[in-house]
Amino acid sequence: MAQPPVPVSLADKLSRFSELWSPKIVAGVNDYEVKLVKVKREFVWHTHEETDELFLVVTGRLTIQLRDGDVVLGPGELFVVPRGVEHCPVAEEETSVLLLEPAGTVNTGDAGGPMTKEPVRLD
Amino acid sequence: MAQPPVPVSLADKLSRFSELWSPKIVAGVNDYEVKLVKVKREFVWHTHEETDELFLVVTGRLTIQLRDGDVVLGPGELFVVPRGVEHCPVAEEETSVLLLEPAGTVNTGDAGGPMTKEPVRLD
Repeated sequence: MAQPPVPVSLADKLSRFSELWSPKIVAGVNDYEVKLVKVKREFVWHTHEETDELFLVVTGRLTIQLRDGDVVLGPGELFVVPRGVEHCPVAEEETSVLLLEPAGTVNTGDAGGPMTKEPVRLD
Repeated sequence: MAQPPVPVSLADKLSRFSELWSPKIVAGVNDYEVKLVKVKREFVWHTHEETDELFLVVTGRLTIQLRDGDVVLGPGELFVVPRGVEHCPVAEEETSVLLLEPAGTVNTGDAGGPMTKEPVRLD
């Protein structure tokens, strides 16, 4: 194996950054990436035309606003936003989310703008 | 959207089956599947030559035996077994695990045998 067999603790990884809306890569599965992100307040409405996007709440409470209704996620709840579906995450309290999507997926999708962040690997 | 925007609660899904070593599909992300599986005792040594496989422990404690050492995972800890790496999960107590892998990945990989299960979708 290229890397020693060390588990990834989500809590440990989350303890190592505080920046909001800035996804950190914590694992890879083939050409997909598992990212952790801390969020608070509202993101930007955007669409990923090329991919579905999985959100799994680790701590806190996330609302994924969709044009046909909101999805509210607590810890241990997940939702997959299908490709092409416009969405806008928002959280009243600071919330930690695990994301799964293909490597290279841009956090702001088609919207771009100042919230766009290049994810960094959190070793 | 093809489906109404309903979140997936891991705890709710886990409450709806008891069978061991029989993965249930709870979500899809493009051509990948998120599965939940309950495990206890030892599985079979096997390899997925064509894909990495992600294990995230939800409840309990999972040991992933590898030929160069064991990885022990508690709740909120994950590990990705790289493609081509032989492994054998084992759990002393009943343990719930979230799996992520491409659709069509066979649970017993190259080993086959009586532990092979076709995953079913848990709606």
